[in-house]
Amino acid sequence: MAGSDDVVAEKGGERASDVIKTVMVVIAMQAEALPLVETLQLVEDEQATIFPKGAPWKKYSGDLDALNVHVVIPGKDKSLGVDSVGTVPASLLTYAAGVALQPDLIINAGTAGGFQAKGANIGDVYIATEFANHDRRIPIPVFDKYGVGTMEAIPAGKLIKDLKLKEGKLSTGNSLDMTLQDEEHIKANDATVKDMEGAALAYVADLLAIPLISLKAVTDIVDGNKPTVEEFLENMSMAASALSRTVPLVLKYVSGKSVADLSS
Amino acid sequence: MAGSDDVVAEKGGERASDVIKTVMVVIAMQAEALPLVETLQLVEDEQATIFPKGAPWKKYSGDLDALNVHVVIPGKDKSLGVDSVGTVPASLLTYAAGVALQPDLIINAGTAGGFQAKGANIGDVYIATEFANHDRRIPIPVFDKYGVGTMEAIPAGKLIKDLKLKEGKLSTGNSLDMTLQDEEHIKANDATVKDMEGAALAYVADLLAIPLISLKAVTDIVDGNKPTVEEFLENMSMAASALSRTVPLVLKYVSGKSVADLSS
Repeated sequence: MAGSDDVVAEKGGERASDVIKTVMVVIAMQAEALPLVETLQLVEDEQATIFPKGAPWKKYSGDLDALNVHVVIPGKDKSLGVDSVGTVPASLLTYAAGVALQPDLIINAGTAGGFQAKGANIGDVYIATEFANHDRRIPIPVFDKYGVGTMEAIPAGKLIKDLKLKEGKLSTGNSLDMTLQDEEHIKANDATVKDMEGAALAYVADLLAIPLISLKAVTDIVDGNKPTVEEFLENMSMAASALSRTVPLVLKYVSGKSVADLSS
Repeated sequence: MAGSDDVVAEKGGERASDVIKTVMVVIAMQAEALPLVETLQLVEDEQATIFPKGAPWKKYSGDLDALNVHVVIPGKDKSLGVDSVGTVPASLLTYAAGVALQPDLIINAGTAGGFQAKGANIGDVYIATEFANHDRRIPIPVFDKYGVGTMEAIPAGKLIKDLKLKEGKLSTGNSLDMTLQDEEHIKANDATVKDMEGAALAYVADLLAIPLISLKAVTDIVDGNKPTVEEFLENMSMAASALSRTVPLVLKYVSGKSVADLSS
């Protein structure tokens, strides 16, 4: 009974053949999100009742042609005032907003480190073809595979070709730096880009059976000569601009299509 | 206006002076949870509508004296069949079940590695006095502190004294092993016990303004001579038994009390 349509439907959740009407964009850092919010002329929902009282999470909503677009961000840490980066806040936000908004598609947009050995350059925007973790080491049989947690992205070959996006595997960890053990796992994950949220959001999207696309703009070359932090801070706003150009192109592209349409 | 009552209320959320009627116990591994479920004669809610369709999460509920008790576990990974350990699944489960059940208190019970240099022995059950992360390295000013994410536990001095619990700081990371960088951060966190969920659950509980207590049974001595994995597997069921004795004692103790009563 399982024809090729079923395979696509399975990868993209139950909604693969439905027309995409609502898209939720999850972005970890405010500085990554605001240029996009401005470009799309979205309006902040200041009484977002879908979030717990007192949570720093923010939601910006509006329309792009026939598409209903929500950008959600985990906001500033309540005690320290910096962006709530990393897997846990982004997962919670994606879960809560995903359950409440029931989008047809989730886009995770953000910055990433890129590996020049894999062809990455500063400013490139990658679409992730596979997700894995590099900082969940559990050296017990089967648990080791669970820790890495490799997940394939939804098939999006036509989108990638039509929008001329670069594609590569994404490896996720909760640190901005990279230890020798991280590096070993990133290599084993065959990753071109490295971020701090992607694989966790792929996990949440799978749990909610909502298809997810991950777009990552390269701020720093991990296997280059410059220190990561310096290069990251230097290229952060340039990468945010790249995202504010690419995400609307993807939104316009998916509007009126189904998830199954993105692959062929 | 801020008297000592207000300070306690702030630490324990808005519910600090309310009588504890509902407790949610979050446990990462099924083998840690089942002896407790049996001891408390809880019943599995097989149609737990509070969870997303298809999620492996499980809920067991029942009464202990006047107390309504729910044990929730993230269940077995859908693809690999092993327990969904680590910060992301436990955070999502705690968020979803916390929002739905609105417990007056969350107890995170589980196993941990202990440091003999800090006085830990195999089988000890610790209550965490402070939470921090050891695998979220973000070497940018203020982001570095956010990464560590130190949070104080709710004051529970009276509970600790009356039940003769051992107390210590808990450091959390997504790996069972410990790299040199992890070790450095665990030392900086002044931790006596090391687990894979605690600090994330303290973050979620704070987000939901629900007080949380963390009880950790020591399965292995991290700074000892035996390999962690071997020792962990060897002592796992003994630690689960220790939890199935201690958690009911804590539940009976908190029943009819307020969170504020636990400290003085």
